[in-house]
Amino acid sequence: MGANQPLAIGIDIGGTGTKFGIVDRDGNVLFSGEMSTRKHKEIDAYINELYDHLLVLINNAGGIGTISGIGVGAPNGNYYSGTIEYAPNLPWKGIIPLAKLMSDKFRLPVTLTNDANAAAIGEMMYGAAKGMKDFIMITLGTGVGSGIVANGQLIYGHDGFAGELGHTIVIPDGRMHEGTGKKGSLESYASATGVRLTTLEVLENSTEPSLLRDADKETLDSKVVYDAAIKGDKLALEIFEFTGKILGLALANAVMFSSPEAIILFGGLTKSGDLILKPTRKHMEENLIQVFQNKVKILVSHLKESDAAILGASALVWEKNR
Amino acid sequence: MGANQPLAIGIDIGGTGTKFGIVDRDGNVLFSGEMSTRKHKEIDAYINELYDHLLVLINNAGGIGTISGIGVGAPNGNYYSGTIEYAPNLPWKGIIPLAKLMSDKFRLPVTLTNDANAAAIGEMMYGAAKGMKDFIMITLGTGVGSGIVANGQLIYGHDGFAGELGHTIVIPDGRMHEGTGKKGSLESYASATGVRLTTLEVLENSTEPSLLRDADKETLDSKVVYDAAIKGDKLALEIFEFTGKILGLALANAVMFSSPEAIILFGGLTKSGDLILKPTRKHMEENLIQVFQNKVKILVSHLKESDAAILGASALVWEKNR
Repeated sequence: MGANQPLAIGIDIGGTGTKFGIVDRDGNVLFSGEMSTRKHKEIDAYINELYDHLLVLINNAGGIGTISGIGVGAPNGNYYSGTIEYAPNLPWKGIIPLAKLMSDKFRLPVTLTNDANAAAIGEMMYGAAKGMKDFIMITLGTGVGSGIVANGQLIYGHDGFAGELGHTIVIPDGRMHEGTGKKGSLESYASATGVRLTTLEVLENSTEPSLLRDADKETLDSKVVYDAAIKGDKLALEIFEFTGKILGLALANAVMFSSPEAIILFGGLTKSGDLILKPTRKHMEENLIQVFQNKVKILVSHLKESDAAILGASALVWEKNR
Repeated sequence: MGANQPLAIGIDIGGTGTKFGIVDRDGNVLFSGEMSTRKHKEIDAYINELYDHLLVLINNAGGIGTISGIGVGAPNGNYYSGTIEYAPNLPWKGIIPLAKLMSDKFRLPVTLTNDANAAAIGEMMYGAAKGMKDFIMITLGTGVGSGIVANGQLIYGHDGFAGELGHTIVIPDGRMHEGTGKKGSLESYASATGVRLTTLEVLENSTEPSLLRDADKETLDSKVVYDAAIKGDKLALEIFEFTGKILGLALANAVMFSSPEAIILFGGLTKSGDLILKPTRKHMEENLIQVFQNKVKILVSHLKESDAAILGASALVWEKNR
């Protein structure tokens, strides 16, 4: 068992679905599948179903002897302890010893980390951060996650929980985050929920006509705002400017912390392209002191979204065996 | 030349004075001295005077053959390039190739980094961070500097300028920083100048009687505020509460970034003890999400202040040769 087998299993446990796949060393996803994360309230039943799905893929790939190990990305996943701890969006409460449970079931070494850290390793091995030793990965999805790489290593911190940029406070006494109870965190503005709340606020505080007034308030997301903005909708453009102002400020603070070569963005909001990237870049530069200005690239991940999570998780296996 | 000689030279270049000393591997400062940084507008003349001073010390220590190398801490010192770049508080403008100039003069290897990074290495080798692999050093002086250690390594970042926590924005659109032109940075509140400005603001915005009203406005510093606060002066206590609120918020953001075991504070403000530490801790904890709460120690450096800068700089020599 170890680094000599040619394939790795990557598993991405999300709040809704779990994606899994078998990946080779060049980052090709050879076989993949998906199942619900929410179906099983008991972690053992969840792992049993995952095992059944993966066994089919493993046999297609040439049997268990071709597999070097399993990498798992999950919210609140801890690299050191192999546990998922108090993940608000997962059905299993408390501290779950996921790596041990999976390793007992699969009889393979299992490496766990949080989903944004897995994404960072994926970008470093196969994506926009290839060859970089200092970069920050930021995932803009339901939440805002981050993975920080310095000196070519992922920063796990003392307890394995480093890289929670989404929870740093950008606007003191700002918008309340429902999940954490903290005010003014980056996540409360730059997540999907954050953009939706900004949209509702902007609509309420203005009498300006807007295409957004006809949108379904429940399904409002950055795609809806994007569609309005490219038609020149004034309020939609204002929403991107506001979100970019906050994201840019958070990026400036991150740059002055670890001085990365690039910041890699990933997730729903990045699909709005320059509408979000331009104000983000502008406000990042405005908040940087001179020595950091016009140096740091803001890049959008170019991994296929369907593969990125699996790739990132599988890369944990190779990363550990380097 | 290299790691076999028993002694190292440590030099700390400050805005006003330059401290230098000869240090053994156990962190004993055997010989030390000080000279003005401001006397020489030409860097060559400055290095010549420094050389003359140090030659006496080197001869006392047994000659050049006992010296392994020179470590220098300086504002805006770059570890990778060995240059001091655009340091606003030093008399030499532009980019100064200090490590090369000194190495040519002394015929010894010279390692340069910024002063807060040097302090962090000093704390790791001889001080409060001994044995720690993940910590953040914050120097609260004329400016606010920081050095970040993760996985046992100092984070220099892509370009050697990582760790500028003092310039991160804590209060968007907050107090203007005269040196950088940026608004609301940690340094604009938690530096000596910052505390002085807060004091003037608090006095102006209140009609409350206060011992601080009799203080000399020009020499006001945290010591003066401390003296008033321990006598129960209401406005003085308010100033510490305000400063601790901002410092605590900045520390919380730093913790959520790199998840250190401890934050080590150093410098003038820390002499106010619990008056500044209590509000700082309280506000740090309030801004942390649950997974980080009640875990991170805030420690005050216990290196002798007169030695700390020299020790930190000299530690660069051993660090490089590990």
